[in-house]
Amino acid sequence: MRAGDLTTPALLADAGVLERNVATMSAARPGPALRPHVKAFKCTPLAGLLAEAGHTGFCCATVREVEGMAAAGLGGDLLLANEVLDTRRLGALMATGSARVTVAVDSSETIAAAVAGGVREVLVDVDVGMPRCGCQVDEAPRLADEARAVGLEVRGVMGYEGHLQHEPDATRRAAAVAESMAVLATAHAGVGGEVVSGGGTGTFDCNHVVTELQAGSYVLMDGDYARLGLPFEEGLVLLTTAVSVSARGWAALDGGLKALAMDSGDPSPVGDGDVLFCSDEHTTVAGTFAVGQRVGLRPAHIDPTIAKHEVLHLVDDATAGGDAEVLESWPVDLRGW
Amino acid sequence: MRAGDLTTPALLADAGVLERNVATMSAARPGPALRPHVKAFKCTPLAGLLAEAGHTGFCCATVREVEGMAAAGLGGDLLLANEVLDTRRLGALMATGSARVTVAVDSSETIAAAVAGGVREVLVDVDVGMPRCGCQVDEAPRLADEARAVGLEVRGVMGYEGHLQHEPDATRRAAAVAESMAVLATAHAGVGGEVVSGGGTGTFDCNHVVTELQAGSYVLMDGDYARLGLPFEEGLVLLTTAVSVSARGWAALDGGLKALAMDSGDPSPVGDGDVLFCSDEHTTVAGTFAVGQRVGLRPAHIDPTIAKHEVLHLVDDATAGGDAEVLESWPVDLRGW
Repeated sequence: MRAGDLTTPALLADAGVLERNVATMSAARPGPALRPHVKAFKCTPLAGLLAEAGHTGFCCATVREVEGMAAAGLGGDLLLANEVLDTRRLGALMATGSARVTVAVDSSETIAAAVAGGVREVLVDVDVGMPRCGCQVDEAPRLADEARAVGLEVRGVMGYEGHLQHEPDATRRAAAVAESMAVLATAHAGVGGEVVSGGGTGTFDCNHVVTELQAGSYVLMDGDYARLGLPFEEGLVLLTTAVSVSARGWAALDGGLKALAMDSGDPSPVGDGDVLFCSDEHTTVAGTFAVGQRVGLRPAHIDPTIAKHEVLHLVDDATAGGDAEVLESWPVDLRGW
Repeated sequence: MRAGDLTTPALLADAGVLERNVATMSAARPGPALRPHVKAFKCTPLAGLLAEAGHTGFCCATVREVEGMAAAGLGGDLLLANEVLDTRRLGALMATGSARVTVAVDSSETIAAAVAGGVREVLVDVDVGMPRCGCQVDEAPRLADEARAVGLEVRGVMGYEGHLQHEPDATRRAAAVAESMAVLATAHAGVGGEVVSGGGTGTFDCNHVVTELQAGSYVLMDGDYARLGLPFEEGLVLLTTAVSVSARGWAALDGGLKALAMDSGDPSPVGDGDVLFCSDEHTTVAGTFAVGQRVGLRPAHIDPTIAKHEVLHLVDDATAGGDAEVLESWPVDLRGW
């Protein structure tokens, strides 16, 4: 089957790029030194490829992701790297014995929820500079004690330096990461345990503190990460059809902001053309196009782009437009909550 | 059931706001003078309410929407207000006799596709100033002749003044709409037929040319449209839980840019607090919050926000947080392509 036979808009993943990106990361972070984050791609067949490459522990951001990974037989060591108060569903899952689940805690309330939900293992989540989740570093030992006192196994600490992932200057990025991870190391010294979890695609080669890197976007990259000059290639393309061509010098493609994440800006055409704007179901591109022509768009941010689609099509060449061969069609089975 | 019993993030629609918005629009555009656009809400139970209010013809943006509306028994008069080259699925649908489908055409290619797909009725889509779809006004009569020559019924013309929907000054908006719609009237004079279709929520009271208004967002409004001072209220809220509260003065809510459209900017909290930023699964809000507190966020753009959710919960008061009563839970059954 050719990509030109797919209903557009269709999301294409380049098989060669995916293979090379997985190999590059595996060389830098082999086996358990990488805990791939499934939030980036929300697709258990893709997670299965990473498990085959030796990365059998995974990060999840939502309960739905944990449930789906367990159902797919990939629940050997799942870290729900997020604070969760509603752990009822996790408890039901763990009662089946189909998964090992560790959750992040950063408060007495999240510790109580873990216990109430039947979760047995936790990491203490530490604020390492990004304004989001995580306790302050000096609270970490007390929270670890509190968790242990109620019978939880504290496997270690977690801290995500998300605010540094997109720092464009590699030297400044490395220096800031070292400073941020020093906070996590301090927390770890006070908490104990074997696990120091954190990092991401943008800090894969400069985060020397974590025992396991929580990267996901590297598998197919995106416009936002591509600016960093990392050794990973962009491999995700939204295939569209030019459904209308104007004498005024533009074409309307049949994929718009319901098919593309817009938080990091407009997509970029694979070939010629300049994106003028995206509307709900269209992208208007200035340039010379023919009605019916297949046009690829590279999204600025892959995680939320993939989450908008039911299917991710693995192709031999995502830049080949309608001529690309569809190798597999994977369900994006981890989306939702 | 209370909204506090729902897994968060959960999308809530205010029943009272919905009822009042529908009544306000029906008073201005009764019965067939309104052709509600289902792209805004992608939910057949909500479309059913509009049919009960007398609006039995609908606009669709995708083939999936047409299929879903037909399957729900709402296919009496569906306008696919978009150019479509792949009409195979429409043809299969129309062969069942379950729907009357009219499609927009703006080129020889889209006319040929309509014929090949077994579509029998079309509107000629005209560029009225927005850089997207539509033929130039002087091409419209020739395209109508071409369509009739191959056996299609040309019901009239369509032209969407999308570039004017969000003009904040009502006087300037009305003047620009009059100018834009004069183009459509010229096209109509050359094309014939009974239908002049166009307009939207932002031009509902100043578009005096269209015989049917293609509005959808008015049912629940959003931050972007709310700035216009229209007589419709905002009724869509993403209910989240504060899963982490920092001593540094913010809370992390468990709904982020995978649950909220970001093309028109950040969401706004229902109550106190200032949104700092959205990440994949979180919104960080500055202010005073308690762990476990339910916090509502109003999205900046409703159409793509709803398209990110499987379910839309109708509640008695979308501003009541976890105390809101869930009246019905509607599937968002028209999303995808």
